[in-house]
Amino acid sequence: MIVGKVVGNVWATRKEDSLGGLKLMIVQRIDAFTNEEKESFVAVDQVGAGIGETVLVTTGSSARVASSINASPVDAVIVGIIDEMEVPGNQ
Amino acid sequence: MIVGKVVGNVWATRKEDSLGGLKLMIVQRIDAFTNEEKESFVAVDQVGAGIGETVLVTTGSSARVASSINASPVDAVIVGIIDEMEVPGNQ
Amino acid sequence: MIVGKVVGNVWATRKEDSLGGLKLMIVQRIDAFTNEEKESFVAVDQVGAGIGETVLVTTGSSARVASSINASPVDAVIVGIIDEMEVPGNQ
Amino acid sequence: MIVGKVVGNVWATRKEDSLGGLKLMIVQRIDAFTNEEKESFVAVDQVGAGIGETVLVTTGSSARVASSINASPVDAVIVGIIDEMEVPGNQ
Amino acid sequence: MIVGKVVGNVWATRKEDSLGGLKLMIVQRIDAFTNEEKESFVAVDQVGAGIGETVLVTTGSSARVASSINASPVDAVIVGIIDEMEVPGNQ
Repeated sequence: MIVGKVVGNVWATRKEDSLGGLKLMIVQRIDAFTNEEKESFVAVDQVGAGIGETVLVTTGSSARVASSINASPVDAVIVGIIDEMEVPGNQ
Repeated sequence: MIVGKVVGNVWATRKEDSLGGLKLMIVQRIDAFTNEEKESFVAVDQVGAGIGETVLVTTGSSARVASSINASPVDAVIVGIIDEMEVPGNQ
Repeated sequence: MIVGKVVGNVWATRKEDSLGGLKLMIVQRIDAFTNEEKESFVAVDQVGAGIGETVLVTTGSSARVASSINASPVDAVIVGIIDEMEVPGNQ
Repeated sequence: MIVGKVVGNVWATRKEDSLGGLKLMIVQRIDAFTNEEKESFVAVDQVGAGIGETVLVTTGSSARVASSINASPVDAVIVGIIDEMEVPGNQ
Repeated sequence: MIVGKVVGNVWATRKEDSLGGLKLMIVQRIDAFTNEEKESFVAVDQVGAGIGETVLVTTGSSARVASSINASPVDAVIVGIIDEMEVPGNQ
């Protein structure tokens, strides 16, 4: 899974029917060790994430294992909101 | 999913039978946060996208979950036309 | 899917039994918009492609959806020979 | 599979139910030949790995084949703790 | 599939049970056209490859289609030993 920061929302009126009702958010990947900011992408939010929160994102076919979206063409899902990352080597 | 801009069309007469009837478009990936232009690839259009439009693209096996193409060797599908992206941190 | 140019052939005598009879070709990825040459890889040819031709390649699990190879450990397949790419923004 | 070094832990209270009870660790990818440090990500630990250990990580849908997590939205799993890597060309 | 050179071995005593008996080798990816050396990773050997040999590697879920490992969390498998690569444009 990757760590990311929720940075925005996406709206699409014309879309695949099975995407209806899913919340689409823009997530910027963050390197969990170096905190370097990386590429941004769109993920479906399943846990009620908000702008600015640090989240855990599952990608690929595993994203469809998340609750209630196995029949949607989705390849990235926010599966958790990160409370804390402990990285001893960076202290 | 990734954000992209539709920049062209592709035609292939000799192809896998199961690709018949699918519209193939060239999409250039755009970073949803920084707007940086990235690599281009080919995606099947399922939502009636046109040149110049900003679209949402699903890749990998999840692309085959999109309507009517589960039996085609397709790894990227345009699943939505983006109306608006709201990125508070960039305002 | 990605656009590539067929640049060579690969021969392997010792290989997985299920790869027997498949034609293996070296393909160099080309950016469909900028024409930049990218990394090269090996793909199974399912459409009779020849050296120098521009082709459409499907990767990942979707490659196994192509005809007759679902039981082979294959992650890249040439699924079409490109006749024309029309990219208005580059004219 | 990739080689990585366990560099930290991640805690997420609000998360997909099916992630409950899984140990999430931050892993920094290491190039197995050059020892170059690469990007970091989050993996589920299935073998009792600790901070500082060098581990083997399986990614993508294959991660779900690891024991007991096939029904969880997981795309990276620590599947082994590496005792030794022998690379003759680097001696 | 990708082309690689076998550069080493990996040993892991503590590991997923289903990895037992599989030979793990370190493979350095080689660009099939330019011969450029790229990143290294770990692959299961299914064809009796040795250090220094040039091999064909299948990655992702397709790796699990290789013989006898469909129930193991494996995402890269050596599926062939390359005898010859013919790249006319490089002659």
